[in-house]
Amino acid sequence: MDITVAIDCMGGDHGPHVTVPSAIDYLRHDPEANIILVGIPDAIEAELQAAKFKSSTRIRIHPASEVVGMDESPALALRNKKDSSMRVSINLVKTGEAQACISAGNTGALLATSRFVLKTIPGIDRPALAVILPTIAGHTYVLDLGANVNCTAEHLLQFGVMGASLVASVENKNAPSVGLLNIGEEDIKGNEVVKKASDLLRGSGLNFYGNVEGNDIYKGTTDVVVCDGFVGNVTLKTSEGLAQMLATYLREEFKRNLLTRLAGVFAMPVINAFKRRVDHRQYNGASFLGLKGIVIKSHGSADVFAFKSAIKRAADEVRGGMLRRISERVSDLSK
Amino acid sequence: MDITVAIDCMGGDHGPHVTVPSAIDYLRHDPEANIILVGIPDAIEAELQAAKFKSSTRIRIHPASEVVGMDESPALALRNKKDSSMRVSINLVKTGEAQACISAGNTGALLATSRFVLKTIPGIDRPALAVILPTIAGHTYVLDLGANVNCTAEHLLQFGVMGASLVASVENKNAPSVGLLNIGEEDIKGNEVVKKASDLLRGSGLNFYGNVEGNDIYKGTTDVVVCDGFVGNVTLKTSEGLAQMLATYLREEFKRNLLTRLAGVFAMPVINAFKRRVDHRQYNGASFLGLKGIVIKSHGSADVFAFKSAIKRAADEVRGGMLRRISERVSDLSK
Repeated sequence: MDITVAIDCMGGDHGPHVTVPSAIDYLRHDPEANIILVGIPDAIEAELQAAKFKSSTRIRIHPASEVVGMDESPALALRNKKDSSMRVSINLVKTGEAQACISAGNTGALLATSRFVLKTIPGIDRPALAVILPTIAGHTYVLDLGANVNCTAEHLLQFGVMGASLVASVENKNAPSVGLLNIGEEDIKGNEVVKKASDLLRGSGLNFYGNVEGNDIYKGTTDVVVCDGFVGNVTLKTSEGLAQMLATYLREEFKRNLLTRLAGVFAMPVINAFKRRVDHRQYNGASFLGLKGIVIKSHGSADVFAFKSAIKRAADEVRGGMLRRISERVSDLSK
Repeated sequence: MDITVAIDCMGGDHGPHVTVPSAIDYLRHDPEANIILVGIPDAIEAELQAAKFKSSTRIRIHPASEVVGMDESPALALRNKKDSSMRVSINLVKTGEAQACISAGNTGALLATSRFVLKTIPGIDRPALAVILPTIAGHTYVLDLGANVNCTAEHLLQFGVMGASLVASVENKNAPSVGLLNIGEEDIKGNEVVKKASDLLRGSGLNFYGNVEGNDIYKGTTDVVVCDGFVGNVTLKTSEGLAQMLATYLREEFKRNLLTRLAGVFAMPVINAFKRRVDHRQYNGASFLGLKGIVIKSHGSADVFAFKSAIKRAADEVRGGMLRRISERVSDLSK
């Protein structure tokens, strides 16, 4: 299926130096994709030349004169930078020239701008950020990751609908299982919002599994895990911190002395296979769900490989008909 | 310093089979500790005999005729089981015969019963569960871990006071740093409760570091991390799940084929050193803080080694004068 995605080339820690080679590389692996490179033409051209890219009908530059800074206030970016590479990319989705856009830029500005430009799907109060995480047996989708704090039960229900639609569209699963993140102690069954959300999800027509606990995320108990943005953000960041600590420990143990270094040489192929398996770059790309358009947020520090994962995520969502699926499921809710 | 601790011998998945040998073993390493073994005398005696324990003035049995089941309703346990090993252990703290008690039993029942029997320290509205977690450079204390959902800003402030008192007493740090768990995006600076708690902590006289994010826990950015029980519980359980997943992956990679198995043999001493370092058993024992007595909750599945860590935690809190420190800091707040 022929698709077109817009890339905010100026966003992220590395800008066009990562986004442009990544786009070129992506096209090699997806013969039915077209890409619009959005940003300052000179900067983009320079990277195309550096990559020795020959002109192609599948890639074109769309100029944007401004760049949103990584630390810029989202409100100011929204108000003042109408010709930023980020905003122009989102505009291309709105006009239908692209079916999705990807940015590694300022998260807050991306959320605010895409919500302002694209608007939410009827029936969705608040868009949410979803990420994919590895599990023992595969992977799972978790939302919200920080776009919303202070969620109501109705918001959590909508996250369930959006998460299920996302998995249905990119994983080809008809009725993905949805879990509600809660705490396990029998005496303290979670707060009022979660209790009410549980009732709503149970009556929603979704394949609701019930409550899940933190450890169920990486067990892969359900296809989708729903939580409010505060909990989701803390959970994700904690996981990053723990993984870094364990990696540091393992490295230190292998570097302890000559003997352990030698063991490290023998174990290298295994450790490298392990590293490839847990490489978070393959999971790069958070989906901003609930808008009338597909928006993918790449990690700011993404390299060429990681950014390509984010482009692929956008392409999968377009081809899986995600927007239609969300709309359908939301309208099912009100029946 | 001579101390006496009461052990609920019947609690946990393994009961006296773990708690009794663990107590005997602990006494060997702490010549100034006395232990009261609480539970069904026959069951305790049998384990003492199995361990070939010779009678000692430092250990005695205190009978209790009932046992709280792991899945029993905390409310029913509180109402009906007045002679349970758990409740009798807590009573010994109340009467002053013991300075602390340890139980691996039903968490909800332990929280409810110890709160009912011991009452809270004036100025503390809600007791909280604190755990110790490893960090890149050492360890950190996190609370609350699930005793409280729906916390107010004042509760979070009190958690900060209790956490700082705990670290001051067991780590010999005069002004432990306290971080407030929050989410990082500049545009979405957390919910109203956390914002207000931040103001309260800033004016509290504690060594308040400011907001921290999930990854700061395992970085060890602060000595204490404060959060509400819902977030804390999810964070802890998620960490357990991630650690299990990574361990599974690593094991699978080493078992992939003959060559990787051989590498595993070479790497074994390093992997074992790594395992010892991340062994969660050394961190067993959550402190139930804010009561007029010291109560330690051991993991239900604790083995002899893990349960000993919990006994040590109790002894450290007694010797560090934790209760006095909490009272002093709370009364400082109201000045």
